[in-house]
Amino acid sequence: MIIQKTCTPESLFSDDRFSVVYRIFGNEKEARAKAEDICIEQTVEFPADEVPDGIIRDRVFGRIESFDRHDAESFTAVISYAVEIAAGELTQLLNVIFGNSSIKPGIRVERLELPEPLLKHFKGPRFGREGLRKLLNVPNRPLLATAVKPMGLSCPELADLAYQFAVGGMDIIKDDHGLTDQCCSPFEERVKRCAEAVHRANKETGRPSIYVANITAPNSEVRKRALTAKKAGAGGLMVAPGLIGFDLMRELADDSGIGLPIMTHPALQGSFVTSSNGISHGVIFGQLARLAGADATIFPNFGGRFSFSRDECKEIVTGTVEPMGHLKTIFPAPGGGMSLDKVPDMLETYGQDLIFLIGGGLFKHGPDLIENCRYFRKMVEAIQ
Amino acid sequence: MIIQKTCTPESLFSDDRFSVVYRIFGNEKEARAKAEDICIEQTVEFPADEVPDGIIRDRVFGRIESFDRHDAESFTAVISYAVEIAAGELTQLLNVIFGNSSIKPGIRVERLELPEPLLKHFKGPRFGREGLRKLLNVPNRPLLATAVKPMGLSCPELADLAYQFAVGGMDIIKDDHGLTDQCCSPFEERVKRCAEAVHRANKETGRPSIYVANITAPNSEVRKRALTAKKAGAGGLMVAPGLIGFDLMRELADDSGIGLPIMTHPALQGSFVTSSNGISHGVIFGQLARLAGADATIFPNFGGRFSFSRDECKEIVTGTVEPMGHLKTIFPAPGGGMSLDKVPDMLETYGQDLIFLIGGGLFKHGPDLIENCRYFRKMVEAIQ
Repeated sequence: MIIQKTCTPESLFSDDRFSVVYRIFGNEKEARAKAEDICIEQTVEFPADEVPDGIIRDRVFGRIESFDRHDAESFTAVISYAVEIAAGELTQLLNVIFGNSSIKPGIRVERLELPEPLLKHFKGPRFGREGLRKLLNVPNRPLLATAVKPMGLSCPELADLAYQFAVGGMDIIKDDHGLTDQCCSPFEERVKRCAEAVHRANKETGRPSIYVANITAPNSEVRKRALTAKKAGAGGLMVAPGLIGFDLMRELADDSGIGLPIMTHPALQGSFVTSSNGISHGVIFGQLARLAGADATIFPNFGGRFSFSRDECKEIVTGTVEPMGHLKTIFPAPGGGMSLDKVPDMLETYGQDLIFLIGGGLFKHGPDLIENCRYFRKMVEAIQ
Repeated sequence: MIIQKTCTPESLFSDDRFSVVYRIFGNEKEARAKAEDICIEQTVEFPADEVPDGIIRDRVFGRIESFDRHDAESFTAVISYAVEIAAGELTQLLNVIFGNSSIKPGIRVERLELPEPLLKHFKGPRFGREGLRKLLNVPNRPLLATAVKPMGLSCPELADLAYQFAVGGMDIIKDDHGLTDQCCSPFEERVKRCAEAVHRANKETGRPSIYVANITAPNSEVRKRALTAKKAGAGGLMVAPGLIGFDLMRELADDSGIGLPIMTHPALQGSFVTSSNGISHGVIFGQLARLAGADATIFPNFGGRFSFSRDECKEIVTGTVEPMGHLKTIFPAPGGGMSLDKVPDMLETYGQDLIFLIGGGLFKHGPDLIENCRYFRKMVEAIQ
């Protein structure tokens, strides 16, 4: 053995550990071998028999806390890791959870169990459900959101849509996630016009609707766009963590110079959930979005043009609300191909604490956009 | 129809388009419907029948350039997009390529066809194959790389390994991707000691081996760590774009204040390639790594403890070297569970233009690390 010992003092490690619940596919022998492999692969990535006895083996290796049959084809392994190996960094935490194992077949991250000694490194959502409700002056009913689109319209045209949405009673009017800084609707002009349009509508309605600007952008542009949007009067920000990285979203949420609510968009994150080798809906759209500071998490609703099941959507809701130390609860925002007739079923599934995100459907209900919004809002108000 | 027209002038769009080759699973009718859906979903995300005639339909919609049977269960669709909708942004380019479609089952990005009018927005790799060979003074043979690990060793212990690797003839000595800023080996001390150790070895050997620091970190820490590493004498940087985002890597590569070669690590990117719903090995580890400025791309070698096939690895090699406008070619760096006996087979598969990345295997060959490195190097020198 080349490495005989280490002089790293044991006192550097606490007894605090966080756990990852993995679902592992295969027969029992294969699954157990994969669980043992995860303990090594996600930590030292080094031949276990070349690691000397002592602190690395005792403290750095992952540890199988439980291993049970899940169903005929898979097992559930709970594996714990020393809080210290995540180094208080969201990037390294993600790496420990699933970095190399993402490249191995038949392993799925089902749930995270993060104790306060780990969570203390993360502020989490700035607003959360309660903060967003206060901001929008909506104490009880579901929130109503929509998007300005399609790409290709000019800024005045998008702003006119934003105005109509706000007059019609939408609480949140966001950019479509494909609108960044294209020639047809450059970021700064779009944000100024749309924010102004929503403020103008608010003066007429007396409501505090907000315009949420999409600031998904090249890395060093993101914060600049956030500040531009804030200055222009945007009331919130949208980012796609699959495009900019979870940690940059966290920095935006932590940044008191910005201080706006954040919605996440699921772009490019689908591959994690659409296979048996990935990360569960509840973790990626629920727990991780929340850990990284989102106040609302957008995901495709069941029964729409995407493929999420009702149970998968419920799993996301669980991730937004289950106890996670000091982290605030956040809003699920199911959307994607929604239509008005799904509202009752959604209320039954999600309860009142959700954001209805309706896009193209608002354009299809009738010939008058403002009336369509009003119809939608009345329906939600009536049902609750 | 609520939106009757748009005043966006057609002159905003050139005739330049980029293309994405999608593999689409299903029968012909299903696959064709999915291809048509991609044209909408990846651009306007809006009911097509609510879009007025004119510029949006003509210029913003994706366009099916070809649609052919791939095999019994899938089809190949080449879909083109106006260069302008990517807005010169890597984040938005990724969004157009696969943002929402990542959430839909049975769609896989197989290849990108990016013309110079799009590529002109991206500098690409700073060094590339030629630059890295010059830096390391290795005109022809494969490069030799290894990693300091396991996590849990102290900085002096890691630095001692780095020294032995360099004396033994490794060209590149990188941090293990799990080493960030943990208590057992804090970033700044580790980088200083490891860089110093490699420089000391170089004085003895007369060779220009480099220490490559892992700077995968929280977003705003990344550039700071790059500068710390450079100041300490590191000769290269490693990042995991799956953890920090592709665009931040691009910024590092573009940054002349940094100016060091960049290696990518595949952590957390596995879910994209391990399912039929994702992105091909050649795109994510080849074309995208290169577009985002990597000089070398690390991926799991075939036949190791991961699951990539020889063909998938060859596909990555194609992505590193096929014509992509002005972008330099980059090094494939297959690794992961490699052992010395795989060297001949790898040379046959990859040719001379590769980086052999060997980690734990170097510890298993014999009891003397320096001798193990020398053996490995001699073998590679002899075979070519």
